[in-house]
Amino acid sequence: MIDNLFASRGSSREIEEGTTFAPKFDEAGLIACVVTDIGTGEVLMVAHMNAQAIQRTVATGEAWFYSRSRGALWKKGETSGHVLRLKEMRVDCDQDVLWIKVELVGPGACHTGRRSCFYRAVVHSAPDAPMMLEFRDAEHSFDPAAVYGASKE
Amino acid sequence: MIDNLFASRGSSREIEEGTTFAPKFDEAGLIACVVTDIGTGEVLMVAHMNAQAIQRTVATGEAWFYSRSRGALWKKGETSGHVLRLKEMRVDCDQDVLWIKVELVGPGACHTGRRSCFYRAVVHSAPDAPMMLEFRDAEHSFDPAAVYGASKE
Repeated sequence: MIDNLFASRGSSREIEEGTTFAPKFDEAGLIACVVTDIGTGEVLMVAHMNAQAIQRTVATGEAWFYSRSRGALWKKGETSGHVLRLKEMRVDCDQDVLWIKVELVGPGACHTGRRSCFYRAVVHSAPDAPMMLEFRDAEHSFDPAAVYGASKE
Repeated sequence: MIDNLFASRGSSREIEEGTTFAPKFDEAGLIACVVTDIGTGEVLMVAHMNAQAIQRTVATGEAWFYSRSRGALWKKGETSGHVLRLKEMRVDCDQDVLWIKVELVGPGACHTGRRSCFYRAVVHSAPDAPMMLEFRDAEHSFDPAAVYGASKE
């Protein structure tokens, strides 16, 4: 039944210029999904979807993903309440990456307690020095211990 | 020499809350990189970097990637001239995804001749119907045949 939702992969031209949705899942059945905030445009997180996660996301209007580490389907916000309301789902030219624009319900998308998972910039002071990270937009928007307890969404 | 640029992976706490850059490369030595336009915030493309691509991107201020299909390092814009000027590189909480904010030099980042690779939205008219694609922001900003000729960047 879920297989009927997607088309099989056709020619490059069909994939790039057609209106048939033929996502390219990797050998684990997953496709990467970039999540941006529809208001600010910032990248909130990147996660993976399988066929079922795509189906549930589109059907329910809230983002579902597949956790590689836990080997399980999960709804973003199932523990925290910080769900991601789907505003638009896009796919790229070769249909191997998804981009969803969402409205973040609640203070943050990152399990560390920040709004976005991308709270550090890569900086490089000298060619022979190690690259380092610098915190940016890294203030906590919620207390992860209070929200998640021992679980990690 | 290039290995000195990155730290080895430490504890979760070090990875998530530290200032040490310890990117998690996959078994092929790659890490996904989301590219957004610093002006508009739109996602232009998603590609992969290896260690050398990260090093060159940071050293030169222009984006380099690693092509899985061609098995080669490549500079975005080497054929088209549409280079991506690096404004900031971010990494996510578990350091397995990069996000670069860039200034796009030239009319488009997509080899199909569009500004962004994400020129189609996923739409679903009925639960038992296949998901389809709808063109959005899909006007051509350049002629790919004239820019690339027979090559595909």
